[in-house]
Amino acid sequence: MVGFALFGAGRIGAMHAANIAASKRAALKCVYDVHAPAAQKVAAQHGAQVAGSVAAALADPAVDAVLIASSTDTHVDLITAAAKAGKAILCEKPIDLDIARVEQCRRDIANTGVAVQLGFNRRYDASHRAVRDAVAAGEIGQLQLLLITSRDPGIAPMEYMKVSGGIFRDMTIHDFDLARFILNEDPVEVSASGSVMIEPALAAINDVDTAMVTLKAPSGALVHINNSRLAVYGYDQRVEAFGAKGMVQSENWRASSLRRWTAHTTDAQEPLLHFFIQRYSQAYLDELNEFIDCVANKTAPGVGFEDGRKALVIANAAWEALRSGRTVAIRYD
Amino acid sequence: MVGFALFGAGRIGAMHAANIAASKRAALKCVYDVHAPAAQKVAAQHGAQVAGSVAAALADPAVDAVLIASSTDTHVDLITAAAKAGKAILCEKPIDLDIARVEQCRRDIANTGVAVQLGFNRRYDASHRAVRDAVAAGEIGQLQLLLITSRDPGIAPMEYMKVSGGIFRDMTIHDFDLARFILNEDPVEVSASGSVMIEPALAAINDVDTAMVTLKAPSGALVHINNSRLAVYGYDQRVEAFGAKGMVQSENWRASSLRRWTAHTTDAQEPLLHFFIQRYSQAYLDELNEFIDCVANKTAPGVGFEDGRKALVIANAAWEALRSGRTVAIRYD
Amino acid sequence: MVGFALFGAGRIGAMHAANIAASKRAALKCVYDVHAPAAQKVAAQHGAQVAGSVAAALADPAVDAVLIASSTDTHVDLITAAAKAGKAILCEKPIDLDIARVEQCRRDIANTGVAVQLGFNRRYDASHRAVRDAVAAGEIGQLQLLLITSRDPGIAPMEYMKVSGGIFRDMTIHDFDLARFILNEDPVEVSASGSVMIEPALAAINDVDTAMVTLKAPSGALVHINNSRLAVYGYDQRVEAFGAKGMVQSENWRASSLRRWTAHTTDAQEPLLHFFIQRYSQAYLDELNEFIDCVANKTAPGVGFEDGRKALVIANAAWEALRSGRTVAIRYD
Amino acid sequence: MVGFALFGAGRIGAMHAANIAASKRAALKCVYDVHAPAAQKVAAQHGAQVAGSVAAALADPAVDAVLIASSTDTHVDLITAAAKAGKAILCEKPIDLDIARVEQCRRDIANTGVAVQLGFNRRYDASHRAVRDAVAAGEIGQLQLLLITSRDPGIAPMEYMKVSGGIFRDMTIHDFDLARFILNEDPVEVSASGSVMIEPALAAINDVDTAMVTLKAPSGALVHINNSRLAVYGYDQRVEAFGAKGMVQSENWRASSLRRWTAHTTDAQEPLLHFFIQRYSQAYLDELNEFIDCVANKTAPGVGFEDGRKALVIANAAWEALRSGRTVAIRYD
Repeated sequence: MVGFALFGAGRIGAMHAANIAASKRAALKCVYDVHAPAAQKVAAQHGAQVAGSVAAALADPAVDAVLIASSTDTHVDLITAAAKAGKAILCEKPIDLDIARVEQCRRDIANTGVAVQLGFNRRYDASHRAVRDAVAAGEIGQLQLLLITSRDPGIAPMEYMKVSGGIFRDMTIHDFDLARFILNEDPVEVSASGSVMIEPALAAINDVDTAMVTLKAPSGALVHINNSRLAVYGYDQRVEAFGAKGMVQSENWRASSLRRWTAHTTDAQEPLLHFFIQRYSQAYLDELNEFIDCVANKTAPGVGFEDGRKALVIANAAWEALRSGRTVAIRYD
Repeated sequence: MVGFALFGAGRIGAMHAANIAASKRAALKCVYDVHAPAAQKVAAQHGAQVAGSVAAALADPAVDAVLIASSTDTHVDLITAAAKAGKAILCEKPIDLDIARVEQCRRDIANTGVAVQLGFNRRYDASHRAVRDAVAAGEIGQLQLLLITSRDPGIAPMEYMKVSGGIFRDMTIHDFDLARFILNEDPVEVSASGSVMIEPALAAINDVDTAMVTLKAPSGALVHINNSRLAVYGYDQRVEAFGAKGMVQSENWRASSLRRWTAHTTDAQEPLLHFFIQRYSQAYLDELNEFIDCVANKTAPGVGFEDGRKALVIANAAWEALRSGRTVAIRYD
Repeated sequence: MVGFALFGAGRIGAMHAANIAASKRAALKCVYDVHAPAAQKVAAQHGAQVAGSVAAALADPAVDAVLIASSTDTHVDLITAAAKAGKAILCEKPIDLDIARVEQCRRDIANTGVAVQLGFNRRYDASHRAVRDAVAAGEIGQLQLLLITSRDPGIAPMEYMKVSGGIFRDMTIHDFDLARFILNEDPVEVSASGSVMIEPALAAINDVDTAMVTLKAPSGALVHINNSRLAVYGYDQRVEAFGAKGMVQSENWRASSLRRWTAHTTDAQEPLLHFFIQRYSQAYLDELNEFIDCVANKTAPGVGFEDGRKALVIANAAWEALRSGRTVAIRYD
Repeated sequence: MVGFALFGAGRIGAMHAANIAASKRAALKCVYDVHAPAAQKVAAQHGAQVAGSVAAALADPAVDAVLIASSTDTHVDLITAAAKAGKAILCEKPIDLDIARVEQCRRDIANTGVAVQLGFNRRYDASHRAVRDAVAAGEIGQLQLLLITSRDPGIAPMEYMKVSGGIFRDMTIHDFDLARFILNEDPVEVSASGSVMIEPALAAINDVDTAMVTLKAPSGALVHINNSRLAVYGYDQRVEAFGAKGMVQSENWRASSLRRWTAHTTDAQEPLLHFFIQRYSQAYLDELNEFIDCVANKTAPGVGFEDGRKALVIANAAWEALRSGRTVAIRYD
């Protein structure tokens, strides 16, 4: 039984709390949120305590592991503190928006020996993972083209956008990690294009809502990513991997396999699952279960701190490419 | 927390045991099987006791409910005994192969007031249920044609076939219940055709392995069911409801949304989920949860004893139709 | 170059005229219709003559072949007259509604030696034919289940329904022929169910608008056909053949491969092609080309008089099955 | 009746010859090819003459129009000569590989007043065109993302590759035109990535076989194009247009709507149509018919010389982007 402290009781924190609570192998011991009522609500739902502070939560011997679902700017401090307290860590992406802080954090936790798992949910999706597995098994031969489509069902308020770090560090970072996961190598070049087509106010903060990114891997494999902050038909998540021997595609999932035929349309499928919490619900469970395995068996997570750092490196390079109109070499050191 | 006794620790009993054990709202108290090692294995897996007898299990005050997953010929006795012991009952289909015994059971438990839920898993499948809901909501107008395809991935050994009660009472009974569920009325006529095309030994026991059944409802709606004991491509479960305003279809589910393109085939989907335990895994969970709700809230199950009895009545009439070459009127009294 | 006389200048006659006119291997010589303006219009469109009478058309030495697209009750007389005049014949289905007249026609033309091809368009559809070819090539092993869905986009006026011969001889006759084509054997038993759910006035003329038919072949293969006179989503034409080694399906065709995603629906396909003239447009061309080949090369058509007669025999047996509530043995002699 | 001279009797010339010959509104008058036996074969098949020279063909008063399907380096001279001879022109893409020669040609034919239609077949494909029409009709609101996938079923021999002009001027040029067609505006920026992953010998001639291109339009709409010289599963041609109100996709076409289910795969679709001659067979017919309309009615073609020139401008800019690793501004003047 793995005892958890949860940091952050917002939408995604509440979901993680429910997953922890539903597991017979885990127990939600305490919840901390800077907004105390949020912590109280989630704690009450699952019979957990409200922690008075991060330090108090980390001092609790019943806490084996922490799940970090608080705002991005708190991640590094929480990772560092938890690592020094000897707690295993499951942290939502990104580690931080500032690569210097990430590097510092890397050094600070280097000798703690705790397991740090990053919440890159796409890696746990059955279909995206099946693409990776097919590529890894050589089913499509040498990978040549990889296409990732990732579009959100709605744009966040401008208050959030202002602190999001920009589309590449906030949204595309998932796709950069997914690309590395499927490529099984680190991309070395990036170019990027972007437009403001949805939320005009983004122009003032130098961000975009519509973007395309191209990556190139050492093998020569090319990756295309396209993002939109607003797809009216819902949360669109697809992957296509093309190689010397064929192609595999991960299509969207639906709530059911229903097809509808009416006077106006035929063979229409069910709406897309609303957003990440619905689309990746099983992935979040599988991610948690892998983390519990790591804690229980003292093994290393499949997706770790270094993956979080590298995704941020790519995001920064993509930003530079977008701003400079050049293909930018990606340097991971 | 609902305490369960499990009767029958075979494949489907083991699955139910795991579902009970995984629920935070239920506890597996004891397991009974005529084959004691099977009971021991399942009990040990989930920290439950092995019951020395049915009577002992029913005498246990920690047991609120029984889950009957033993062989068909034991169902009636177990239902009757459990009902008289005041235990709620979740029983796998069919109630019995002999309608007279079912009628007797109905009388015997009439005044016990216990909840009896039948394990018609199709009703809990998200897509089949979405078809029912669309029809009930009037989305396709008056239902006119209903097509049910149900084909197994492999045929059972002849020892089982000899006691199965024949294809209609063993296999099609699920489809008869599903038809009633979607029709929302009781079919009044049935005709049937069948052939032995897979297992020649079936001819000697007067059974078939390939069948088509047509039902007619009082509204005039027509129902087609086709069954095969062996589909080499897997467990094929589809429903199509056609009406005055359109059509809805429940397509097969897959383990993932992967599509494959090779030199030999394009756009190939994942294999079908192997058999009922995989295909209806979520349905079995939802079925159990509904039953736990019924026990906890003392409400009536959505699918009850009467549904089990009516499905058997239709199966018997279909058998008569097959043998006589006539359209047979279905009488439920 | 094959010279054609066209009998019947209605909707389907006009389509055949256009196909003949567009072929560089055929010429439309003359058109006859009891309604002279219809003949004049079609003849004028394609630079053909209006024939003053059937006899005049048949006396024209430039006429090598006749295409019969007039009302059903005229088919037998026209076939007989054309055969006696030594003209090759492409006749729309059915030969006649009265099996006695068909038998008489068979005797009357027995020694004329002319090619008679029946207009069973489904046989020329690329996808339906691919099902037949896959079955014939043994791709799915022994055929066990055959499902045919055939639903019209709209019901004809009651004046037509009164002379249509009933749903089985008018509409299902195409499916009976298609079943024979794919089975490659003649079904020996039929049962049928039907309802009036679309046009209440049909009850008074003892017809139905919603029907299901089951056929059994000597091999044991079972066939299901379902028909509706009104599918609001369009002309629905599908075939599914299931056998010992797998399954093949012929899905509906669309005007394009477009998919639409909106706020209300995802992955919606194009509307179905409106009705038989659109859905089977290529089939009508291929049918005509095969007929021209037969005339040019003096070979026998792939689908002939006997196929037309047998389809009517099945339709009559189905009608008897519907009326009697019995499975009826089909006798072709 | 439009009389045609055909220049070039290779694979695509032979196809055009057959289309001209099959039309009742056109006649193939003469064929010229530098390889005389090729011209003789095509001419003989369709009862046309072999022209002794280009000049002889252009001097023939029965020739109203020329179809240019010869090698790329002959296009400009043939266009110029034909225009000066007053013949309407349907020319295969590209106009030339050298933009200076294209500019010169533009000046040379400026005052001839003849119709010049470019053979951009994608514009005539029913599904690709339906995407354009949906966008133009505002069905998806403002266009934001456009994705074009174009992959060949096999790579041409190195002799051809050496004179092809490189992947962008040879292959992607179709996609550049298609992008302009759907965007309804001229892209102003391009970036590009490429790899040699199929034919190592391409490296020596500074070409690539695997490429991704990003375009940006004045509206902010972003376009992704991906190309491969070898897709083992066949000729893959897809378009996806995403906008403020939804998405439309043009999927691949198949020879039939057959689906296959076997022990190894389910729901597999028919192979893709082999290559451009099969995939765009109807498009080539529609293209020819539009051209015949233009000649007959003296109207301007929908896709003209200027479209050919602009596609080449984009291809050149893409090449510069690939070589420089910069986003390149596209200048059409």
